[in-house]
Amino acid sequence: PKSRFSTAEATVILRENGKMREKTLTMDTLNPQVKAVEYAVRGPIVTKAGDIERGLQQGQKHPFTEVIKANIGDSHAMGQKPITFLRQVVALCSFPELLNSPSFPEDAKQRARRILQGCGGQSLGSYSASQGVDCIRQDVAVYIEQRDKGVPADWDNIYLTTGASDGIVSILKMLVSGQGRSRSGVMIPIPQYPLYSAAISELEAVQINYYLDEDNCWALDINELHRAYQAAKEHCHPRVICIINPGNPTGQVQSRKCIEEVLHFAYEENLFVMSDEVYQDNVYSPDLQFHSFKKVLYEMGPEYFNTVELASFHSTSKGYSGECGFRGGYMEVLNLDLEVKAQLVKLLSVRLCPPVSGQAAMDVIVNPPLPHEPSYLQFHKEKSAVLGALAEKAQMTEQTLNTVPGIKCNPVQGAMYAFPRIFIPPRAVEEAKSLGMSPDMMYCLRLLEETGICLVPGSGFGQREGTYHFRMTILPTTEKLKVLLEKLRDFHIKFLKEYASLEEPKR
Amino acid sequence: PKSRFSTAEATVILRENGKMREKTLTMDTLNPQVKAVEYAVRGPIVTKAGDIERGLQQGQKHPFTEVIKANIGDSHAMGQKPITFLRQVVALCSFPELLNSPSFPEDAKQRARRILQGCGGQSLGSYSASQGVDCIRQDVAVYIEQRDKGVPADWDNIYLTTGASDGIVSILKMLVSGQGRSRSGVMIPIPQYPLYSAAISELEAVQINYYLDEDNCWALDINELHRAYQAAKEHCHPRVICIINPGNPTGQVQSRKCIEEVLHFAYEENLFVMSDEVYQDNVYSPDLQFHSFKKVLYEMGPEYFNTVELASFHSTSKGYSGECGFRGGYMEVLNLDLEVKAQLVKLLSVRLCPPVSGQAAMDVIVNPPLPHEPSYLQFHKEKSAVLGALAEKAQMTEQTLNTVPGIKCNPVQGAMYAFPRIFIPPRAVEEAKSLGMSPDMMYCLRLLEETGICLVPGSGFGQREGTYHFRMTILPTTEKLKVLLEKLRDFHIKFLKEYASLEEPKR
Repeated sequence: PKSRFSTAEATVILRENGKMREKTLTMDTLNPQVKAVEYAVRGPIVTKAGDIERGLQQGQKHPFTEVIKANIGDSHAMGQKPITFLRQVVALCSFPELLNSPSFPEDAKQRARRILQGCGGQSLGSYSASQGVDCIRQDVAVYIEQRDKGVPADWDNIYLTTGASDGIVSILKMLVSGQGRSRSGVMIPIPQYPLYSAAISELEAVQINYYLDEDNCWALDINELHRAYQAAKEHCHPRVICIINPGNPTGQVQSRKCIEEVLHFAYEENLFVMSDEVYQDNVYSPDLQFHSFKKVLYEMGPEYFNTVELASFHSTSKGYSGECGFRGGYMEVLNLDLEVKAQLVKLLSVRLCPPVSGQAAMDVIVNPPLPHEPSYLQFHKEKSAVLGALAEKAQMTEQTLNTVPGIKCNPVQGAMYAFPRIFIPPRAVEEAKSLGMSPDMMYCLRLLEETGICLVPGSGFGQREGTYHFRMTILPTTEKLKVLLEKLRDFHIKFLKEYASLEEPKR
Repeated sequence: PKSRFSTAEATVILRENGKMREKTLTMDTLNPQVKAVEYAVRGPIVTKAGDIERGLQQGQKHPFTEVIKANIGDSHAMGQKPITFLRQVVALCSFPELLNSPSFPEDAKQRARRILQGCGGQSLGSYSASQGVDCIRQDVAVYIEQRDKGVPADWDNIYLTTGASDGIVSILKMLVSGQGRSRSGVMIPIPQYPLYSAAISELEAVQINYYLDEDNCWALDINELHRAYQAAKEHCHPRVICIINPGNPTGQVQSRKCIEEVLHFAYEENLFVMSDEVYQDNVYSPDLQFHSFKKVLYEMGPEYFNTVELASFHSTSKGYSGECGFRGGYMEVLNLDLEVKAQLVKLLSVRLCPPVSGQAAMDVIVNPPLPHEPSYLQFHKEKSAVLGALAEKAQMTEQTLNTVPGIKCNPVQGAMYAFPRIFIPPRAVEEAKSLGMSPDMMYCLRLLEETGICLVPGSGFGQREGTYHFRMTILPTTEKLKVLLEKLRDFHIKFLKEYASLEEPKR
C-alpha cells in the first residue's frame, strides 16, 4: 500500500477501481449480545410517545392535547419538587463561594464542607476514589446501621455507584463465567425490572425465571424458587438470586418471613444474593414495613451472616428525593472473598469514579437534617408531603383500576408502580399476533394513540404465558392521575366492547 | 427441600450435616474477562501511595513529608481552580432559587435557564433522554461546527456520555463480534491509555498493537499501521482503529498529513475509526495545532466524508476545565448505519442517562461566554491562566528531564503527560525479574518509597520490548513540579549509580 498520496489522487484511484466502501458496522456485524438486549421502559412505545409529543407541539391534531408519561419512575419530570436541603448542599458543593452566603442554612453548609473536605483539592471536579468519597461511604455505613437497628456496617463494604444500575451490572459481571451447562445462571423474578434481563443478555448469562404469585399480591413463593432452581440446574449453574424489594414493577413489599426463606435457600444452594432495595423508603401500606435483607440475614445468626454473599443496592433516584438525573447510588457487599474484592475495585477503577455530585446527593439522603438542626422542619415537611402524596396515589390507583371490568390490580404496597392484569379478548390477541406484536403491546400502543397515555406493556417485564399486564407509575400529580385513570377506564371499556362485538358473529 | 423452618432448626440441621458453605464468588469462579482487565493508572502503585499517605497522616516516618501524585490527569486534585462560570451555571441549575440572586451574572443565568428548559419538569433531577438533553446536544453540534470552521455537524449524531470512557466502551461493545479468526480486532497505539486494553480484555476482542515512533516525537507511522494490520489479519478480523490525539500518554499532537493518512488507510481497509480527542484544548507547542479527524475527513471529500464510520470523543475532564468528577462528555458518530444507530440508543438506554449535572458542565464548555457577555473577561482570564501554566510546565518538564543522564523525554506538545524513556541498568532489570515485576514497576515503586513521588510505570501503557518508561502528569503546581523533578533527578542518578556499582564486579 502507498504511504503517501494526495487527496485527489486517492479519490481517483478508488473510483477507477470501482471499489465501494462497505459499512464496517451493520446489523450483520453488530455484537449479537447487544442485539439481544431489550429494555422496554425506554422501548418503542416511549419513542412513539416522544414523536406524538413533538407533533402536538407543532400543531398536529390528536384526540388529546397532551401526552401523559406514566412509563418511567421519573418523579421530577412528573412535577415532584426537589428536596430543598439536598439541592442546597449540591449547590454549595458546586460553587463553594456560596458557603459565605447568609441565605444558606448552617446545616447545609456543614454537610457541604464535610463533603468537600473528602474531595481531592476540595473540589467536586476531582476524581474520587473508585469506591467513592471516603466520608460519604462512612455516612452510608452509619445510615445502614441506624436503619437496621444496630446491625454493624463496615464502610469498607460500601461502594458508591452511578445509580443502582451501575452497581447491579458490575456485580453481575463478576459472577458470569463457565460455558455450556456450567454457564452462570441468574435467578430473577418475573415480572422483573428489565435492567436484569438486559444485563443477563449482554453478559450471555442464563436467565432463570422464578414467577411471583399474582394471586397472592405478587409475593415471592419459596416453592417456586425451588422449582425454578431445580429445573435450571439441568442446563446451567445457578449462582445468583436477584430480589427486588419493594417490587418493581409489582409494588409488593416482602414479609420478613419470606426474606428469611429466600436467604435460607440461598445459603443452602450456595447462591450469591443481590437485593435491589432502591424503593426502601417507598412503603405505603400502614401495616407493612421494609425489612432489609441484611438485617434479616444478621438475625438468622452468624452461620448465615458470616457466610452468605449479599450485595444490596440503593439509589438517589427513588424514595422521596427522586433525583434520577444525579445518577447517585451505593451498594453494600457482604462476605466477598478478599481477592475478589480487589478485583471488583479494579473493575470499577476503569470507569474512574461515580459522578461526584451524585455522591454528594447520596450523602444527603443518608445524612439528612436532624431534629435539632435548622433545616429539619422544612426537610421533614417536604419529605412527608412527597411520601404522603405517593401513598394516596397508590391507593387511588389500585381502587380506580379495580372498578374497571377486565382489569384486576393488586394493592400497590410500595415502590412507584401498579402492574394490573388486563383481560384482552381473544380476537384482540389474534389481531396482535397477526401484526407480529405482543397483545399488551398492541393494547398500550392503541391506548397511547387514542388517549395520549404512555404505559409499558407487561411483556417488557415478563408475565405468565397467556396473561397480560401493563406497568404504570403513580407519579403524575393527583389531578393528572385522576384524568389518566378515567381515560384508561373509558379506553378499556371501549376496547373490550370493540373486540367483544367483533367476536359476536363467531358464536 | 423444606419450605418452612425456624432459624434455630435450620442452623442445627446444617451443623449436624457438617456442611460448610463455600463462597460462590472466588478467584476460581470469577468472570475470567474481569480477571484479565488491567488498569495501571489506578493500579498497585497508586494503592501503595494511598497507604503511605495515610501512614504519614498517622505520624509514620518516611524519608519525605508528602506524597506527590503525578499518576493521573486529575487537575483539581492537584490544585487547579474550577472555572467560575462553569460552576456558577451548575450551581444555578442545581438550586434554581439562585436565579433570583443578584450575585450571579446574567449570562450564567441565561445558560442555566436554557438547560433547565431542556430538562423534564425543569429539574436536573429528571432522567434526560438516553442520548442526553436535546439543547445541550444542539450546543455541542454548534461548537463542533465552529471548531471545524463550518464543517456541518448534526445534533442527531451527538451522544452525551458519562465521561469519554463511557462512550468509548459503548462503541467498542457494538463492534465486537465473531469467533476465532473472525473475532473483531481493535488497533490501538502503543503506548496507549489503558482504558482501551481494559475494555478489549473485558469484551474479549483482539488487541492489535501499532507502535508509535518514539524517535519521531511519538508520531504515528503509517507504515507501522500497515504492518500491524497485515500481521493481525492472519488471526483476527481487524475492524476498528483507535487514535488518541493529542496523545495519552505521549503528549504528541498529530499532523494534518498524518491524520489524512490514517483516514485513507481506514477507508481502504474498511475500518471503523475511533478518535479520542479529549485533549483537543491541550496543545502547548506554538507551532502546532489540533486538527479534528472529522474536519480532515471532510476536507478529503464526500467519498470519504460520506462513508468512513467515525466516532470522536470529548470530555469535561481535561482541557482547561479539568472537571473529572462531573463525568461529562460527548461523542459524535458519523456514517453509522441507521438500524445500528437505533441499537446504540437502545444499549445506552439501559443505563438510563448520563449524569445531568455532567451534561450541564459539558454545555458550558461548548457554549462559553462570548466577548460581549458579562462573564467573558473573567472566563477568558481563567482559561488562559490554566492553559498558560500547563504550557509552561510542559516545557519545564521536558527540559528538566532531558538534563538527567539516562532519561530522554520527547517534547510535551499537548495533553497532560510526559512519557520519558528511562535507562534501567541490566542488573536492576535482572533484580526486577527475580521479584516477578516489570523493571519500570520496580523503579516506580522505589521512587515512591524513597521520595513520595507517585508515577505510573510505562508497562501499564505498553512499550517496545526492552524499553522502559514512566508516565507523569504535568499537573502539580509549578513549585511542586520543580520539587518533583529535582527529587526525580536525584533519585535517578542514585539509582543508576547503585546498579552500576553492583555491576562493576561482573566486568
